[in-house]
Amino acid sequence: MSVADLTTSPVTSTYTKTSSRLHSSQPFTLVNPQVPAPVAVQTEEAKNKSECFGVFCQTYDLKAEEETKSWKKLINVAVSGAAGMISNHLLFKLASGEVFGPNQPVALKLLGSERSFQALEGVAMELEDSLYPLLREVSIGINPYEVFEDAEWALLIGAKPRGPGMERAGLLDINGQIFAEQGKALNAVASLVMSSALICLKNAPNIPAKNFHALTRLDENRAKCQLALKAGVFYDKVSNMTIWGNHSTTQVPDFLNARINGSPVKEVIKDHKWLEEEFTEKVQKRGGVLIQKWGRSSAASTAVSIADAMKSLVTPTPEGDWFSTGVYTNGNPYGIAQDIVFSMPCRSKGDGDYELVKDITFDEYLRKRIAKSEAELLAEKRCVAHLTGEGVAFCDLPEDTMLPGEM
Amino acid sequence: MSVADLTTSPVTSTYTKTSSRLHSSQPFTLVNPQVPAPVAVQTEEAKNKSECFGVFCQTYDLKAEEETKSWKKLINVAVSGAAGMISNHLLFKLASGEVFGPNQPVALKLLGSERSFQALEGVAMELEDSLYPLLREVSIGINPYEVFEDAEWALLIGAKPRGPGMERAGLLDINGQIFAEQGKALNAVASLVMSSALICLKNAPNIPAKNFHALTRLDENRAKCQLALKAGVFYDKVSNMTIWGNHSTTQVPDFLNARINGSPVKEVIKDHKWLEEEFTEKVQKRGGVLIQKWGRSSAASTAVSIADAMKSLVTPTPEGDWFSTGVYTNGNPYGIAQDIVFSMPCRSKGDGDYELVKDITFDEYLRKRIAKSEAELLAEKRCVAHLTGEGVAFCDLPEDTMLPGEM
Repeated sequence: MSVADLTTSPVTSTYTKTSSRLHSSQPFTLVNPQVPAPVAVQTEEAKNKSECFGVFCQTYDLKAEEETKSWKKLINVAVSGAAGMISNHLLFKLASGEVFGPNQPVALKLLGSERSFQALEGVAMELEDSLYPLLREVSIGINPYEVFEDAEWALLIGAKPRGPGMERAGLLDINGQIFAEQGKALNAVASLVMSSALICLKNAPNIPAKNFHALTRLDENRAKCQLALKAGVFYDKVSNMTIWGNHSTTQVPDFLNARINGSPVKEVIKDHKWLEEEFTEKVQKRGGVLIQKWGRSSAASTAVSIADAMKSLVTPTPEGDWFSTGVYTNGNPYGIAQDIVFSMPCRSKGDGDYELVKDITFDEYLRKRIAKSEAELLAEKRCVAHLTGEGVAFCDLPEDTMLPGEM
Repeated sequence: MSVADLTTSPVTSTYTKTSSRLHSSQPFTLVNPQVPAPVAVQTEEAKNKSECFGVFCQTYDLKAEEETKSWKKLINVAVSGAAGMISNHLLFKLASGEVFGPNQPVALKLLGSERSFQALEGVAMELEDSLYPLLREVSIGINPYEVFEDAEWALLIGAKPRGPGMERAGLLDINGQIFAEQGKALNAVASLVMSSALICLKNAPNIPAKNFHALTRLDENRAKCQLALKAGVFYDKVSNMTIWGNHSTTQVPDFLNARINGSPVKEVIKDHKWLEEEFTEKVQKRGGVLIQKWGRSSAASTAVSIADAMKSLVTPTPEGDWFSTGVYTNGNPYGIAQDIVFSMPCRSKGDGDYELVKDITFDEYLRKRIAKSEAELLAEKRCVAHLTGEGVAFCDLPEDTMLPGEM
């Protein structure tokens, strides 16, 4: 099914959901252009159905057996871009129990494309061969309406990479169409790119907007590591790290509120010039440096950060700490514009929900940088208005702010 | 450092070790020829030293802190082929605590090649960005004598892939030289290929031969999954699965001793013709089918199986069950030839050691197939005699028994 097919599919109420939580997905980087997808040959049947795969078609009664009777109810996790490199790491983490814990059986619903369908079967085969006791169901399909049915988490990892000479606005539009359709299909979803999460959210009116997240956890993890390196401490000593704003070069790793060994970063790292002029760039260029070194995008650490982001919502946040995630801004206490998706500091009780952190300090420098990312996201919002149901799009993106290595 | 350099390196007693346990490595498949390695530019210094990387150069005192003072002593794990695809999955499993548990801090010592050095830095950067609390040291290098120093586990994942038109004997020789040198360097090591493990073992006389393992766990996992599929049960119902012999097409997945829901397989699966004529081929061809589907070798499930194999040695084997691993045959109770490495059924108390399972049934069919794999390994042994210090090699390998997909 092509993107064109997707955008003309009817939205039926059959798939309307209200209980779904929505989650992280990935942006323009996720389809690695250096790795050609195998060409798929498939049946008409496979095109239209999401079907159980191999050994995962078995039926059994978890309640009837000693080892499994104390397990929680099966949780359904849908993953798009399931044949890609990030998913190839992430799916195995979800299956192993690393994210949801040792008593939570998992069903994986894998969304691929016609082109990647055989690779999707390969992924399902590797999941079979891994014999994970907690992985109880795996189904694969290329129709988002089928795959997202009953999903309690939807991880939108798949999107188009930027082609040679493609404008950023064009990419926003192409991927926006995918996310609009996936939003309609699931009526609950998310994205690494703030605008994509916004598009999803607007197309899924039956799901609370609060349930949509756009991933900035990899940026947060990278920021913690760079502060640790500069301060000469191990990374477990860095806490309260916020990434504000967009997942782009306007992102704001917040060294005003972050802490090292419990003290404000600026008290520990005396080189404020480095903090103001080099730190943010170090975080932003990390992905680009990795591509140079490793020859491909950072799949493993991206998957780790997605797992971290999910764990942050299903386990209580440690006392006094917080994490970053891109969420809907309505009602935020920071004065950030309403009705966009923006990365902000959050805490969770471990129930899948979160609250914004109130105890945040701002100075003029931090305000100014946040305002720049806010302005960019408002511009992106105007640029995708035709996809959010808010009229005619008007694209005046001032500059190319895509992160290095995310093409 | 090239293979030629390696084979002329002097063996010094400085690196002689006796406490090392040795472990699984991978064979001819591990370097995926479809993924070109980035070209490395590096300093003379990097060539000769194994050095700590980035944030992992920090010093700290685990005993001084509340959260870490109950942790065990740091364990050193050396991994060759560390820039490859299997390692890219395995290293993150080792770092997460999935293999050694939540109280075991880990040091990773990564061995790459001159050609892969930049990719190795990329891997170390992704490990930094993952912020794993248990991962306390990471060092990278291309000199096995440096990297293997003080290693308690050595995972030899790296080897040459088979080039176009290369004879199997030629490949055994080339990889044999690598494993001979790595055996000398560590004086304790292992390999997925039985002959390579044998070569290592012979070149590391200070390490007990019992400590060397060659991986057949992926074959075991695949065999369990295929039996489950055929029997219409979930894979957790299949136990007591042995892979006998070589990691080649002469391997013997043992359906005589395996059990489904506690009953002999042959009582549950009545289609004995399938067991005798199709089952083994299903297991053997799984890797080849995966390459067709997925376009590359099975990195994720191979890494899972290596982690499984390690966990089987550091956690007690469940009552009545066992696992397969390729180990030194001296003293085996099955009548298999002495002085080779052969996959056999084992149990462990979880102390890193193992014992061979005594309670095994044989019939003529099983005996005959085991004898064929045994004959092959004896032929391979003659073929690498110049590398094990046992005289002049004589290669009369009867046929090409390399598994499909392992080139």
